Amino acid sequence: MFIKNSWYVACRPDEIYGKPLGRQICGQKMVLYRGSEGQPVVLEDFCPHRGTPLSLGFVKDGNLVCGYHGLEMGCEGKTVAMPGQRVSSFPPIRTFPVIERYGFIWVWPGDLDKADPALMPTFEFFDNPQWAYGGGMYHVNAGYELMIDNLMDLSHETYVHSTSIGQPEIDETPCKTVTEGNRVITSRFMENIKAPPFWRMAMRANGLNDEASVDRWQICRFTPPSHVMIDVGVALAGKGGFDAADEDKVYCVVVDFITPESDTSHWYFWGMARKFKPNDPALTYSIREGQGKIFGEDMQMLEQQQANLLNYPSRRLLKLNIDAGGVHSRMVIERILSEQSNAADAHA
Amino acid sequence: MFIKNSWYVACRPDEIYGKPLGRQICGQKMVLYRGSEGQPVVLEDFCPHRGTPLSLGFVKDGNLVCGYHGLEMGCEGKTVAMPGQRVSSFPPIRTFPVIERYGFIWVWPGDLDKADPALMPTFEFFDNPQWAYGGGMYHVNAGYELMIDNLMDLSHETYVHSTSIGQPEIDETPCKTVTEGNRVITSRFMENIKAPPFWRMAMRANGLNDEASVDRWQICRFTPPSHVMIDVGVALAGKGGFDAADEDKVYCVVVDFITPESDTSHWYFWGMARKFKPNDPALTYSIREGQGKIFGEDMQMLEQQQANLLNYPSRRLLKLNIDAGGVHSRMVIERILSEQSNAADAHA
Amino acid sequence: MFIKNSWYVACRPDEIYGKPLGRQICGQKMVLYRGSEGQPVVLEDFCPHRGTPLSLGFVKDGNLVCGYHGLEMGCEGKTVAMPGQRVSSFPPIRTFPVIERYGFIWVWPGDLDKADPALMPTFEFFDNPQWAYGGGMYHVNAGYELMIDNLMDLSHETYVHSTSIGQPEIDETPCKTVTEGNRVITSRFMENIKAPPFWRMAMRANGLNDEASVDRWQICRFTPPSHVMIDVGVALAGKGGFDAADEDKVYCVVVDFITPESDTSHWYFWGMARKFKPNDPALTYSIREGQGKIFGEDMQMLEQQQANLLNYPSRRLLKLNIDAGGVHSRMVIERILSEQSNAADAHA
Repeated sequence: MFIKNSWYVACRPDEIYGKPLGRQICGQKMVLYRGSEGQPVVLEDFCPHRGTPLSLGFVKDGNLVCGYHGLEMGCEGKTVAMPGQRVSSFPPIRTFPVIERYGFIWVWPGDLDKADPALMPTFEFFDNPQWAYGGGMYHVNAGYELMIDNLMDLSHETYVHSTSIGQPEIDETPCKTVTEGNRVITSRFMENIKAPPFWRMAMRANGLNDEASVDRWQICRFTPPSHVMIDVGVALAGKGGFDAADEDKVYCVVVDFITPESDTSHWYFWGMARKFKPNDPALTYSIREGQGKIFGEDMQMLEQQQANLLNYPSRRLLKLNIDAGGVHSRMVIERILSEQSNAADAHA
Repeated sequence: MFIKNSWYVACRPDEIYGKPLGRQICGQKMVLYRGSEGQPVVLEDFCPHRGTPLSLGFVKDGNLVCGYHGLEMGCEGKTVAMPGQRVSSFPPIRTFPVIERYGFIWVWPGDLDKADPALMPTFEFFDNPQWAYGGGMYHVNAGYELMIDNLMDLSHETYVHSTSIGQPEIDETPCKTVTEGNRVITSRFMENIKAPPFWRMAMRANGLNDEASVDRWQICRFTPPSHVMIDVGVALAGKGGFDAADEDKVYCVVVDFITPESDTSHWYFWGMARKFKPNDPALTYSIREGQGKIFGEDMQMLEQQQANLLNYPSRRLLKLNIDAGGVHSRMVIERILSEQSNAADAHA
Repeated sequence: MFIKNSWYVACRPDEIYGKPLGRQICGQKMVLYRGSEGQPVVLEDFCPHRGTPLSLGFVKDGNLVCGYHGLEMGCEGKTVAMPGQRVSSFPPIRTFPVIERYGFIWVWPGDLDKADPALMPTFEFFDNPQWAYGGGMYHVNAGYELMIDNLMDLSHETYVHSTSIGQPEIDETPCKTVTEGNRVITSRFMENIKAPPFWRMAMRANGLNDEASVDRWQICRFTPPSHVMIDVGVALAGKGGFDAADEDKVYCVVVDFITPESDTSHWYFWGMARKFKPNDPALTYSIREGQGKIFGEDMQMLEQQQANLLNYPSRRLLKLNIDAGGVHSRMVIERILSEQSNAADAHA
């Protein structure tokens, strides 16, 4: 079950550069391309003529031309031309609201009349010269809820990412989880510890002594439908931690946009925004390489977990304090799904 | 659903040279081989002893020896010998009527008593010294009806085969479709145009100036169960088109024998017969290479179309004038299926 | 359907050297590893915390540490520790009785209270200096019953293994099958024949003239759940055959431990014990290479047989005299399954 009335990251702009892209989002086959003004367009990936995927075609003058018999589909989902045919009575196909923002193409898979750009969340670190951003995308054969669980409980870092960002102090330090409306925040603060390898690299990049003791923080912020922003960083010990001056810390936001494909698979758009050395592209490259490797370590675990859960469908899982972030996030999702279902019933 | 009481191309002779071949046709697992007189034999691919495929065995003195325990199956589907066994009470397996003609092995997947070699259609271009023939086979993960649609509407050439046989004039010229009993014919005549690359090559091969304006024709002829013969060619403009003298034209028949494997896959035996330079094997090779590449371009489209239709099972497709060839061909198939079903009920 | 209350070979010791192994046996996902005393441990492959496979983790101080969040599972299926957690109320996971013997790890997939090491069969050729042993493992996509059929009817050697151990005299010599309680024995004795290539190699290795006429024997012994031991060998003709003096014969036992994975797949632990030149490792290597190649020849046949049987589910197979070994073995299995089912009902 997916929250359909919401904005999801659909793709990166380079994925629709010069050609249409076929992608399934929340169980819907979609085709994405740029119209005549360069604006992104999202349509159902189904030619009304003979049912071929429009994504196999090409873009001409801002219309999407079917690669089979040349039907030209307009940005409103109405056929605008076809060689030798009068097309006015051709059935329309579904269009999906779309916004280009923050370096992504966003789509609204739900009701057309409920789509509102104002419902798009604000991210202070995009389009902000004080910050730099780099990221990538993975396709993961696991339900999107398992990725939310993963990101809302960072105690797994000690085991899955033991050589980069994991350290025993994560396990040993309790986390605290709060729900504020639809937002869930789970945080952990570790004081006077040594930094693990990834953060030592970041400290050196910011001119800090990587042998120094640090205060480390992890503040995971879930917002619906499936975004997880994680404040992460280390500051020289005793300088105020998260609130330390910029020159005494390295501070990043792990950015996770999780887009369901099917009940058991999703597109994972990951990245990292940092508030130090924003004009150093080599550092951006280096961090992205490291993060890509780290997030790749999660994939086998999530995919095998999904397979095991399908194999044991009736087994109840534990909900420990460390799981509170994921558990509460799923409760928010369930409540929104229930509200959308009730609203649909009320209209029926 | 398949028309079972009909002749289908099962394989090329080289596929059963020296060894049996296992192939599924109209949902039936079959094994094909040559008997003691060299005649083709088609049996159910199931050893009555322990159920292994007989196609894993070998041919000995015209009998098919199971590769597991040496049961010898005769051409009539009756076990003729097995080491140390009396075989007279072994249950028979099903045999299928078979004919070798026109360079193919043909099988009748339906009722044994209805198989009649006289029902095999006649093709003037096979075994005729005025014609040359070359072709190949593809396995396609799409229902055979989608291939009939494809071949009975050549307006797709403009898009799928834009670099070889496609040209805008195909789209711009209306086609005409007629049904004569079980035959469907859809034709298109283009006058005073330039030839596309494939036909320029053919013109040069026949000593014609490939820059000259031409009249071009496409006459698609469907006959049940799923054969599509297409008269194609170009003549120097104003010389009579299809009826021009042989020295003023290049004239071919595209030969399409479409053999269902399952509801969503088929074997596609394609080829081209030509009525010029029949004794030029290098030209035969060159045309076959070109045609193989062109027909390969259709495969991704058909397979993705099939996948999309399975994903949208209730969606109605458009039936435009250009689709009339496929639509009428399917109506013929439906009528024959209905007649065969009624005949079966009358016997019950 | 599997006989669950029985000992099965689960793996070779080298498969759990330094790391846990995930394997499905009789439809159960299991994880195998060594505990703190080096003893083998078998648990359900399911972390009670979030359902990930424990086999993705690692062994620490004899406990199995989940690779996701560090839950430490004890050998009794009870969680012994987890960072920052009180684990006493965590639900236990299933444990499986295990024995290490004869160079294998054996598991009992059934009822814990019925597992009895005394029910493990005795094999005289293991751990016996007069014998040498070598073997390997295959994964086969066919039900384990088809492998039992294969091994209890060696007439297939003439066809499947024609270049190594097959010869026409196998087919021509009747076999005799007897059932003694739960044991089924099918035997064939061939007198005064020439040895096929594999046995010629063995004769030369044992200093015998490989051109000499021989008496050859095959005595297949099935015991539940799915073990097949086959006495095989050749003796110089007229020297007593199976009972000939060691210097006049080459005598081996083909060892087949067949472990069901699912209804249509199994793990096949094959090997050969020989009672000549036991201290010649090069000979062990050579025999294992030959046997591995021979047994590989059966795999395509069994997997295609399985596919064909799934395709023809209602077809009855023949039960000839040569099939008596497999047929009687399956009757033993059916009877034990029925007894276990009745016992379960009586408890309910």
